[in-house]
Amino acid sequence: MILVTGFEPFGTHKSNPSEEIARGLDGRRFGGHDVRGVVLPVHHREAAARVEALLRAHDPDAIVHIGLAEARARLALERVAVNVMDYAIADNAGYQALGEPCVPDGPPAYFTTLPLREILAALTADGVPAYISNTAGTYLCNQTLYSTLHAVTRTGHRARVGFVHLPLSPTMVAAAGAELPSMDGPLMLRGLETVLRVVAAA
Amino acid sequence: MILVTGFEPFGTHKSNPSEEIARGLDGRRFGGHDVRGVVLPVHHREAAARVEALLRAHDPDAIVHIGLAEARARLALERVAVNVMDYAIADNAGYQALGEPCVPDGPPAYFTTLPLREILAALTADGVPAYISNTAGTYLCNQTLYSTLHAVTRTGHRARVGFVHLPLSPTMVAAAGAELPSMDGPLMLRGLETVLRVVAAA
Amino acid sequence: MILVTGFEPFGTHKSNPSEEIARGLDGRRFGGHDVRGVVLPVHHREAAARVEALLRAHDPDAIVHIGLAEARARLALERVAVNVMDYAIADNAGYQALGEPCVPDGPPAYFTTLPLREILAALTADGVPAYISNTAGTYLCNQTLYSTLHAVTRTGHRARVGFVHLPLSPTMVAAAGAELPSMDGPLMLRGLETVLRVVAAA
Amino acid sequence: MILVTGFEPFGTHKSNPSEEIARGLDGRRFGGHDVRGVVLPVHHREAAARVEALLRAHDPDAIVHIGLAEARARLALERVAVNVMDYAIADNAGYQALGEPCVPDGPPAYFTTLPLREILAALTADGVPAYISNTAGTYLCNQTLYSTLHAVTRTGHRARVGFVHLPLSPTMVAAAGAELPSMDGPLMLRGLETVLRVVAAA
Repeated sequence: MILVTGFEPFGTHKSNPSEEIARGLDGRRFGGHDVRGVVLPVHHREAAARVEALLRAHDPDAIVHIGLAEARARLALERVAVNVMDYAIADNAGYQALGEPCVPDGPPAYFTTLPLREILAALTADGVPAYISNTAGTYLCNQTLYSTLHAVTRTGHRARVGFVHLPLSPTMVAAAGAELPSMDGPLMLRGLETVLRVVAAA
Repeated sequence: MILVTGFEPFGTHKSNPSEEIARGLDGRRFGGHDVRGVVLPVHHREAAARVEALLRAHDPDAIVHIGLAEARARLALERVAVNVMDYAIADNAGYQALGEPCVPDGPPAYFTTLPLREILAALTADGVPAYISNTAGTYLCNQTLYSTLHAVTRTGHRARVGFVHLPLSPTMVAAAGAELPSMDGPLMLRGLETVLRVVAAA
Repeated sequence: MILVTGFEPFGTHKSNPSEEIARGLDGRRFGGHDVRGVVLPVHHREAAARVEALLRAHDPDAIVHIGLAEARARLALERVAVNVMDYAIADNAGYQALGEPCVPDGPPAYFTTLPLREILAALTADGVPAYISNTAGTYLCNQTLYSTLHAVTRTGHRARVGFVHLPLSPTMVAAAGAELPSMDGPLMLRGLETVLRVVAAA
Repeated sequence: MILVTGFEPFGTHKSNPSEEIARGLDGRRFGGHDVRGVVLPVHHREAAARVEALLRAHDPDAIVHIGLAEARARLALERVAVNVMDYAIADNAGYQALGEPCVPDGPPAYFTTLPLREILAALTADGVPAYISNTAGTYLCNQTLYSTLHAVTRTGHRARVGFVHLPLSPTMVAAAGAELPSMDGPLMLRGLETVLRVVAAA
């Protein structure tokens, strides 16, 4: 089974394309793997707790977290998660972490464990703009990725783990009236299908 | 009849989304107006000559030129065309204009004559990122827009005239491997359909 | 005499580098020309009225307007002024023009009349980032440039007229805490000295 | 003693502002600490070897690496170094690492150990644009930072270690003729003086 997670809306955003993509992939099947798509709360404790419960309950072969990265123009395949929470804005519980670790006494960072080069090559061949990113930021996205990698490493779990950051949706940019890059939902979905095809075959 | 024009590929680009959009709209019908979609050569003399011949032959109610603007993130509704050719790269005939006028003794500029605010409101309501742009550059796009507005003004032709700049397509950005904004073909097409609906109703 | 104008602060800006540069150049001398530096109000009527009074009173050989263009990274040598006021924010009198002309029945645009290519070559040789810009926007900067070019043209005045847009100052970007380009005051001043040297010699 | 390192030019760059800043700080004194400024080769093995030799020879209290980050607009105070070399271009020896570790079997990452928040506050108060960056890239800059942090950690050395990325210089942007942010040499130097003042007092 492949676990795919998106996030609920946060900050000033009324929607979150990662939520829609996770829902759109739920129940799909890639290379013999069922996909379970769930939506995580934008909450400094509950997001990680939710993933750990899913890890225990479903024993997934792979976990693909998806999140929103305002101002990025391409799908960002994250290479690394760092042990720091330094929120630019509060989470949906009103909590704003400023420089604390995701896991006290955890290592400084974990590398993600999906085949990034292969995924990038497949996306590029499919005409979906993507790149390998060296920072997942210091908000919930990085924290969730770090927590999952920490849990998987600590328990010796087999799941390979990765994170894909999405651009804003066209609707969000139209509403904002600002010169920001966007990616249309069907293209994002096609991109994530490609990611899952490679992950399922790896 | 509404004349829609795109451009053929130029420079290092292997394709041009404006060509595909113009072809995709050819033969369509909006509010009682037939659409004729044609592809213009990226040539310092022939693009304008081609439009003038179409103007004489088809007597259109409106002309919507479409072109490619690398690095823009949204549909750009051009407000003005200026009487200058200052090409950053040569055209497809190998000619690079450097500071010469589009029309010797022509006025410095023409305003476009489509209802830009109405079009922008319709695009925004449809969730298509767009804005009103104050420069169409100084390459073939601006020149074609200027030439058409000059021809229409000089002959007292009824056609309203405008220009929509498109972002790069996702395929182009994927191939370039650069952090550049893009817009997917179906979304561009939906945007231009909205433009034509407003133009046809005006 | 060369008239140099800057603008007072506006919007959320507490300072305006164009004001400081205009003051810094006041009383200087370039190639036999005295420089008079003045600061214009960010006011939809008074800025133009002030320049017209200075034009009558001082009979300048050249007029170099300077203004602030948030988000630009280089000195922008404006090529053209268009007959439109379309303010993104209100001026300092609380007036927000939305699509009205600078001068009713004025021509759509005027080209500026300084030797832009020569100025750009001199700046580049001096290591000052600069480019020729095709839009001065639709706020006070464009309006002032348009009004001055209109007044000079209408009266047959000899003054050559241009506009240089400045990036934000480092202090403004440091305070904003945003990833925006800036240019340091001494470098801006050196750039404008180069502009005036070329203008004085032309 | 505080060790400050810059890099020699690389790629298509004819100069490197980090070299000039390191030279400009050599021999200066901050809060009782002498500064030794050295220029490192852009070489996949020799840069790290050079720093390790300096570490043994001079027993510095702090090490501030400085490097060039094209396209950044502000001083970037790096938070973390990751154990990966993934060069976009070859180094000056013609070697292009593609996905190999800086130190085989080294940990995934090290956090830098300078007081970043204090440094950022001091820079902001001084009007120098700066921010805390979460990625030093995957070229020589990140590799040198990683290697130094690894050496210091392994040997239990007291030196605190950090990295400051510089924007392009104005001369470089003027020569490139591209819309890229820059920072003037005197402002960069003032920024690094502020960094060293805080580091010396910590």
